[in-house]
Amino acid sequence: MKALTFISIHPQIIESYTRVGVFRAAERLGIKTQALNLRDFAVDKHGSVDDTPFGGGDGMVLRPEPLAHALQSLSGQKRVIYTSPSGRLWRQTDAEEYAVREDEHLVFIAGRFAGIDQRFVDLYVDDEISLGDFVVSGGELPSLLIADSILRQIPGVLGNAKSATDDSFSRGMRGLLEYPLYTKPPVFEGLAVPDVLMSGDHARIVAWRKAEAEAKTRRLRPDLLEP
Amino acid sequence: MKALTFISIHPQIIESYTRVGVFRAAERLGIKTQALNLRDFAVDKHGSVDDTPFGGGDGMVLRPEPLAHALQSLSGQKRVIYTSPSGRLWRQTDAEEYAVREDEHLVFIAGRFAGIDQRFVDLYVDDEISLGDFVVSGGELPSLLIADSILRQIPGVLGNAKSATDDSFSRGMRGLLEYPLYTKPPVFEGLAVPDVLMSGDHARIVAWRKAEAEAKTRRLRPDLLEP
Repeated sequence: MKALTFISIHPQIIESYTRVGVFRAAERLGIKTQALNLRDFAVDKHGSVDDTPFGGGDGMVLRPEPLAHALQSLSGQKRVIYTSPSGRLWRQTDAEEYAVREDEHLVFIAGRFAGIDQRFVDLYVDDEISLGDFVVSGGELPSLLIADSILRQIPGVLGNAKSATDDSFSRGMRGLLEYPLYTKPPVFEGLAVPDVLMSGDHARIVAWRKAEAEAKTRRLRPDLLEP
Repeated sequence: MKALTFISIHPQIIESYTRVGVFRAAERLGIKTQALNLRDFAVDKHGSVDDTPFGGGDGMVLRPEPLAHALQSLSGQKRVIYTSPSGRLWRQTDAEEYAVREDEHLVFIAGRFAGIDQRFVDLYVDDEISLGDFVVSGGELPSLLIADSILRQIPGVLGNAKSATDDSFSRGMRGLLEYPLYTKPPVFEGLAVPDVLMSGDHARIVAWRKAEAEAKTRRLRPDLLEP
């Protein structure tokens, strides 16, 4: 990834999140993030970007022209991502694949209201992605989540290059859930940290964590273990 | 739901999102949202809330005491939600179930760094929820997504009481993906709005939308059609 753009009627939501964490770290590596205000590309001087759906129904629909004009204001090649419940499900392996494509300018379209005009999707969207089987008020949070999951896979973004390899679902964890984590104090409200983690015996610790990750995955997400 | 609290080291992310949309609408119905800064409950005067994991490994782990103290600062009964890849998958039906429980004070714990101490999860968390098989930098976005998906199911939060019933996966859509939406202009870059939507024939429009929703679901998410 070489640049990230979010197109939204609430750019301040994007900016509040991208000022910290992996977005700021990515910026230091030359991956710039920006948020375009869709209302700057409105169809009239009142900032209109939506209208009622043809055929009737509740809620407003984002018109295609402001979206197209916002997109056309960006120079160069772009890959356009639209988050919607109709998209394919986003997975950790997708984040890893996006992370290695260094020359892409990713543009996220954050839908609002009842949705966006289907013709914009048909003409301009490269990848329609869903986070899961639930509905939220806008595409801002889903877009930020997807971008975050990609950025933390890019070498140099996390402080320690190895920090992402023990994440749940990662290649380092062989697709399992992560083992339980413990830090200070040694005893909290009567519960002690498991002895093995205090043993200093690295091989035993590795074996314990592997067994815990497998047991947890078997209990909570047996579907991850299917071949 | 009667109140919403988010516990996070980045309360400004929460506040930026909850100032608009469904959160503001919920506030008008008496459902207050607040963000607690976890660092206000730090273990020392430097604002420390994390430490290295026992047994070694990359990344820092949130200590249990600041989380417990933040939680204990809230009076009354609470339901504590922690978002992590190890949780059960969040679905639209969960949002609908949470939405009808009127007396709950929901508290979201936003994890950061490598994760949070397992003892806090064991002692205090009521519901561990995952958004899907991917990993992000913190629990702020997942928590906001879940809260948003619940709030929009609460009667009176959306401007029009019926707006949520046509959402994808909703009871109104019988668990299907939503039909495609079209608004002005009638022709966009050579593509016309489907004739049926301009016909004014309500029965034909309803039938067309049903067929489109079914075809789209069969093509993109056949798993939703399984009995």
